[in-house]
Amino acid sequence: MAERKNNETSRDTVPDAVVSRLSLYLRELQHLIANDCETTSSTQLGRLLGFTDAQVRKDLAYFGQFGYPGIGYRCSELVGAIRKILGTDRSWPIGIIGVGNLGRALLGYRGFDQQGFEIAAAFDTVDDKVGQEFEGIRVYHISDLEKIVEKMSIKLGIIAVPGPAAQDVANLLVDAGVEGVLNFAPVTISLPDSVQLVGVDLAIQLEQLSFAVVNRATNS
Amino acid sequence: MAERKNNETSRDTVPDAVVSRLSLYLRELQHLIANDCETTSSTQLGRLLGFTDAQVRKDLAYFGQFGYPGIGYRCSELVGAIRKILGTDRSWPIGIIGVGNLGRALLGYRGFDQQGFEIAAAFDTVDDKVGQEFEGIRVYHISDLEKIVEKMSIKLGIIAVPGPAAQDVANLLVDAGVEGVLNFAPVTISLPDSVQLVGVDLAIQLEQLSFAVVNRATNS
Repeated sequence: MAERKNNETSRDTVPDAVVSRLSLYLRELQHLIANDCETTSSTQLGRLLGFTDAQVRKDLAYFGQFGYPGIGYRCSELVGAIRKILGTDRSWPIGIIGVGNLGRALLGYRGFDQQGFEIAAAFDTVDDKVGQEFEGIRVYHISDLEKIVEKMSIKLGIIAVPGPAAQDVANLLVDAGVEGVLNFAPVTISLPDSVQLVGVDLAIQLEQLSFAVVNRATNS
Repeated sequence: MAERKNNETSRDTVPDAVVSRLSLYLRELQHLIANDCETTSSTQLGRLLGFTDAQVRKDLAYFGQFGYPGIGYRCSELVGAIRKILGTDRSWPIGIIGVGNLGRALLGYRGFDQQGFEIAAAFDTVDDKVGQEFEGIRVYHISDLEKIVEKMSIKLGIIAVPGPAAQDVANLLVDAGVEGVLNFAPVTISLPDSVQLVGVDLAIQLEQLSFAVVNRATNS
């Protein structure tokens, strides 16, 4: 087991599910602000998302004290706090490896810019794609990965190649110096402890859906 | 609040996070079987996934008693049980709406067939695409949705259209009689209570990654 940092919030022990819910709170708060709501409450946030108010308060309590007695949460202040916790108060230049259908879909995915993620460069090995632009993003040859990662200060890499190539691409990203990898290939990859890994298994979402259809014939 | 079914396992109250972890257990069990392991334990499963053995036992206990004293879990038996819980012990013909980059990426996504999901048909409005096949899947005009959903017994719909079109497509899927919708468009949509909805917000995965990079500089 690696050494744990003992900071005051022990954020390395926060369950992943809590971190996911922070994203959901952030989205709802952004909707509320778009609808001119200045303040909200754990009850309202919970109701919008189908959680109890206690769940909302408990999740936020991992990170500090954000509400005001008699007011609740100030939406824009809580947005700022959550973005800081999630690390999205800063810029994260991202490199996408693989410019097939999935890579191109990710290059055009509006949900990334909405949350402040900036795709800086794409990489592939196919001559027809290298040097082209897709969705305004230049495609570089994978052999230039290290150079471009350094030049553009790319911190996160997204793997959008077929499964059999995923581990090799992960190794290249690690060698190039990225700090985190999001893996869309439907295989398990290994990284050194110093590089963070999040795997996206799209079948999990379908399994959640089939579970819901089989077991939750009526929504509550 | 809709009426709740009172079955013996109260599966409509199982937290979403537990359902997600069932998928992870299933993947690890499938790997173990591929590596000729016949039995496993909550300790081994937990170690492989970074959870405590207590967490594994607690998650599975929502659904029944699966282990044997002195043996642990029989891998293939537990795979069968989890697939039954998730509803993936049966066939789920799926329709994908939208054959842009994302739709095509999903049509070719190997992770779906690996878990038994079968994309039966795709739908679009663009004349150039209708009647064509992508990844072996025929594209129909969206106006044929209801007819094809009935003919192919499609139960789940995947929305892979741009945000502004997502709610209209969701309404069409509901009218066509699907029981569940997976929404990849980066917008919130509303469905009647009788139709299950899972939203996929790919930025959440990136936020999990940036959180990890900022807060978990060393993996444990």
